[in-house]
Amino acid sequence: MLKALPENIEVNDLIQRLDRGPAEHKGNAGKALLVGGDTGMAGALLLAGQSCLYLGAGWTMLQMLDHHSAHANSNHPELMISQASIKSATKLQDLKADVLGIGPGLGQSELAQTYLTSILTLPNAPVVIDADAINLIASSENNLLLLKIRNQRFPHRTILTPHPGEAAKLLKTDVATIQKNRLQAINRLVELTQSIVVLKGQHTLIASPDHSPFVCQAGNPGMATGGMGDILTGCIVAIAAQGIHHHLDLWESSCIAVHLHALAADQLVKKGVGPIGLTPSETMIEMRSIINQQLKQLNASH
Amino acid sequence: MLKALPENIEVNDLIQRLDRGPAEHKGNAGKALLVGGDTGMAGALLLAGQSCLYLGAGWTMLQMLDHHSAHANSNHPELMISQASIKSATKLQDLKADVLGIGPGLGQSELAQTYLTSILTLPNAPVVIDADAINLIASSENNLLLLKIRNQRFPHRTILTPHPGEAAKLLKTDVATIQKNRLQAINRLVELTQSIVVLKGQHTLIASPDHSPFVCQAGNPGMATGGMGDILTGCIVAIAAQGIHHHLDLWESSCIAVHLHALAADQLVKKGVGPIGLTPSETMIEMRSIINQQLKQLNASH
Amino acid sequence: MLKALPENIEVNDLIQRLDRGPAEHKGNAGKALLVGGDTGMAGALLLAGQSCLYLGAGWTMLQMLDHHSAHANSNHPELMISQASIKSATKLQDLKADVLGIGPGLGQSELAQTYLTSILTLPNAPVVIDADAINLIASSENNLLLLKIRNQRFPHRTILTPHPGEAAKLLKTDVATIQKNRLQAINRLVELTQSIVVLKGQHTLIASPDHSPFVCQAGNPGMATGGMGDILTGCIVAIAAQGIHHHLDLWESSCIAVHLHALAADQLVKKGVGPIGLTPSETMIEMRSIINQQLKQLNASH
Amino acid sequence: MLKALPENIEVNDLIQRLDRGPAEHKGNAGKALLVGGDTGMAGALLLAGQSCLYLGAGWTMLQMLDHHSAHANSNHPELMISQASIKSATKLQDLKADVLGIGPGLGQSELAQTYLTSILTLPNAPVVIDADAINLIASSENNLLLLKIRNQRFPHRTILTPHPGEAAKLLKTDVATIQKNRLQAINRLVELTQSIVVLKGQHTLIASPDHSPFVCQAGNPGMATGGMGDILTGCIVAIAAQGIHHHLDLWESSCIAVHLHALAADQLVKKGVGPIGLTPSETMIEMRSIINQQLKQLNASH
Repeated sequence: MLKALPENIEVNDLIQRLDRGPAEHKGNAGKALLVGGDTGMAGALLLAGQSCLYLGAGWTMLQMLDHHSAHANSNHPELMISQASIKSATKLQDLKADVLGIGPGLGQSELAQTYLTSILTLPNAPVVIDADAINLIASSENNLLLLKIRNQRFPHRTILTPHPGEAAKLLKTDVATIQKNRLQAINRLVELTQSIVVLKGQHTLIASPDHSPFVCQAGNPGMATGGMGDILTGCIVAIAAQGIHHHLDLWESSCIAVHLHALAADQLVKKGVGPIGLTPSETMIEMRSIINQQLKQLNASH
Repeated sequence: MLKALPENIEVNDLIQRLDRGPAEHKGNAGKALLVGGDTGMAGALLLAGQSCLYLGAGWTMLQMLDHHSAHANSNHPELMISQASIKSATKLQDLKADVLGIGPGLGQSELAQTYLTSILTLPNAPVVIDADAINLIASSENNLLLLKIRNQRFPHRTILTPHPGEAAKLLKTDVATIQKNRLQAINRLVELTQSIVVLKGQHTLIASPDHSPFVCQAGNPGMATGGMGDILTGCIVAIAAQGIHHHLDLWESSCIAVHLHALAADQLVKKGVGPIGLTPSETMIEMRSIINQQLKQLNASH
Repeated sequence: MLKALPENIEVNDLIQRLDRGPAEHKGNAGKALLVGGDTGMAGALLLAGQSCLYLGAGWTMLQMLDHHSAHANSNHPELMISQASIKSATKLQDLKADVLGIGPGLGQSELAQTYLTSILTLPNAPVVIDADAINLIASSENNLLLLKIRNQRFPHRTILTPHPGEAAKLLKTDVATIQKNRLQAINRLVELTQSIVVLKGQHTLIASPDHSPFVCQAGNPGMATGGMGDILTGCIVAIAAQGIHHHLDLWESSCIAVHLHALAADQLVKKGVGPIGLTPSETMIEMRSIINQQLKQLNASH
Repeated sequence: MLKALPENIEVNDLIQRLDRGPAEHKGNAGKALLVGGDTGMAGALLLAGQSCLYLGAGWTMLQMLDHHSAHANSNHPELMISQASIKSATKLQDLKADVLGIGPGLGQSELAQTYLTSILTLPNAPVVIDADAINLIASSENNLLLLKIRNQRFPHRTILTPHPGEAAKLLKTDVATIQKNRLQAINRLVELTQSIVVLKGQHTLIASPDHSPFVCQAGNPGMATGGMGDILTGCIVAIAAQGIHHHLDLWESSCIAVHLHALAADQLVKKGVGPIGLTPSETMIEMRSIINQQLKQLNASH
């Protein structure tokens, strides 16, 4: 039988660890680096970055592939946006990011591949792999090998967040097969990639080599819109970045993020924002409200 | 005698079909593609795109003619914005859009014509033709012929949304003549173009080769501002994109969109936003509120 | 003795003329064209344009001198923004604008002068001259002559909106002298320019060759911030553009605009927005609220 | 024993001096100039500029090093944004700024150094030195010498706002040493730089050659996010710019700014905005609310 995630008590226990001590500084909230945003898809990286910002990372740095979009963001000047380049890709370790995310709007260019290689071979830091970064792994045995080597050397520090289409590519099958037996699919994805896996869609599943699958019961079809995956990626990165100084590993961070993401969408639909036209931009703000509200309640009850 | 549209009961029946099942995904909400936004008019395409986003399309892709504006939108990063090009225009079918819209801020350049030709010759997908795309048809017998051929091969899948000025150009007459007998005008437009036609203005009319004219009684002169037509286009595209998996054809989608558009403007004026300075940006948000509110009420009463 | 403006009854009579009939269209709300926004000052033109939009012009077109800022505005896609050029300046009449404004962020380049010459020699349409367009007139006998000729041929259709510094330049004196006797100053400005003149500052004055000076008693020192003049310019243009089909001349439009501008700032300060850090962006939205509220009340009482 | 800052009564006395007389104009609110925003960090300068705008400077001019971001800001068109250049740096005095700030997102390029040299050698005007401008001083004896000469010629008119990392660089030590004895650290910083110093972090300290250290008791770990320092810089500049005509020196202006900054963050956390994901963009708006509210209360009680 499938364990339900979140059983709220449990997720709330995890959230409580994000409570900040009075002397915490930006370093404690973590330095996040997100890579993606090629031409025509640059907004996806902005969405991931904004979500990372609102979910509490100390610094949010973006490496943007579309050079027309690689400038200060007038709506979110907090984002540190640089133009992606081969040089930056190969010197990624110089940025000393605590957590990295790659994929939103990434595309599958040579530059995208260079970043993916660089990130897969970085030691230690937790990494979130999404969207076209998953597609690059699905289409290259070499990338898959790098991923497995990474997971051997640094276990529990890599997560893949495929939607059913990306899952099908990884498993060389079709979407219908994935959706017919999602539990089997996520088990096969974990086995193939040796990573933590979030299989998105109705009733998102989370599993890892060390954790049998959990299911998220929250969420609604208003989430069926472009960009919703990007803000989940940004959220996982943000929580994991804070987690480093707050005793949350990448698995726990992902459980919090999946929970917040679905719960926020449900609350917005209750308020009449959506399901039709519910935007990721609004959802991330609601995610922030929920996490701060829960922290406040948890503190009040202690 | 002219049938009134919307008789609310009937439109609400249509809206109810947009109710989403729990397992729906982005594909079900549809992939929308909008073309336009030449230099000096790029904002028109953004307005259409934002409206498409807020009215619930699964993906909203823009092909923007003004290359200075073809980058991520800081206010609406959900929009997937690419630079228009001859190459993209001729390979439009590769994008596998479910519904297409052309016209907002399009201009009448050679590139605009190339996109129009490409869209008119695309099989199957519903198409909304607005603004300068209408002007291009008005000024070219060849374009009109392509339109008619399209309507023969794929009936009920093309809509034109002229304001009185554009209608006058199509009918080789003047605005005064159009406005003096709008009913006659829309009948002649349907006959000429063999398309669904929305004749905008006070008491917007909708007609098609298979439907005698309906009239929208809602709306107010606060809608007399640049950009209001663009958000109607975006809304028709969004509803039609969802309609594909929700049993709404282009005619029905247009009826919903015209209804929402006028009703939203009326509600905003009641709230004191406008009539003076009522903006399309605000109107589309109200349109979203209305449709979600109506869905909620319809669900509650069942 | 100085007549107070606004005696509210009177201004409200003017505002009532802006009430829109049910069949009004964009043409009735007017086509506005604003010129300015050179490098480093491009925001000033955006402010004027946004104010023009929120105060109800049918179309708001901007000719922007800074080419880095001449693209779609992500916050206000309703604005039609084109790059200014010598060619556009000399073919300005082709745009068929109903009302023109020149000055916000204009600078004093050769291109700025070309636009000013073109606008001063356009027949008929009301024109608002602000900021550096005033400075160009102050520093060139030829420009002053063009202005006078315009006022002879098309009386009551040109307004200058100097702040005390610009007024001092026009009158070849200093700010202290202007401020010591503002009444004398505006009389001399009207005599010199043969135009309608708004002398900004505490207790803004309005006068014309046909109207002895009125004083605006509203307003507060929170208005002492860059950009407040730009939104007044945009508002005058918008009201005048609607005025053409609503029986308001440029003098009457200016009285409405000055009244709204000061009243809005006062209301925002009462609400605790300002005086410190009160922004023009917020003030224009309040101006829109006031005019729609007054129209509603006036309609309710009839 | 360390004096607590703010003892609210005292800070409120200072704030009251910012009350504006009815005849005040933009000149009285001051002209602020901020320098920074190199590639990848351009948002930092926008944050400082927006804070300067909302905290009441008459004009806010930015010299932006990243030329891709040096254009009108669609969200805050009030900002006057120019591209930084060697020519502008060497002719800075022509801008007649009342107060200057340098550092947010500045980087350490040659152009950054040119601006720093230019600002350190400007006579009279109060100057705020932050971020990479501090790092440039930490790494160059020559810059430190220029700073000292400035402080000899124009005492009390220069402030440095290091966070612990920047303080450590100035004092050739490490962060742990700074944090272990922050009081000793700020005394050494004042001695070294002969400037007013704000040592940021939990319980921010303020000291100067003429004032023994004060401590700010307000603030919370939600402030541990990138950009929070930038808005403090913008606020100090804004208050100091108004201070010139309101009898507030740079020391007093800094006390007000530090107080507002921490108090605003505390109030937002109470409202549930943060601590997680509290943004500088939101914090500056709250700072404005507080100062206007306090001014209103102070006026009401007199």
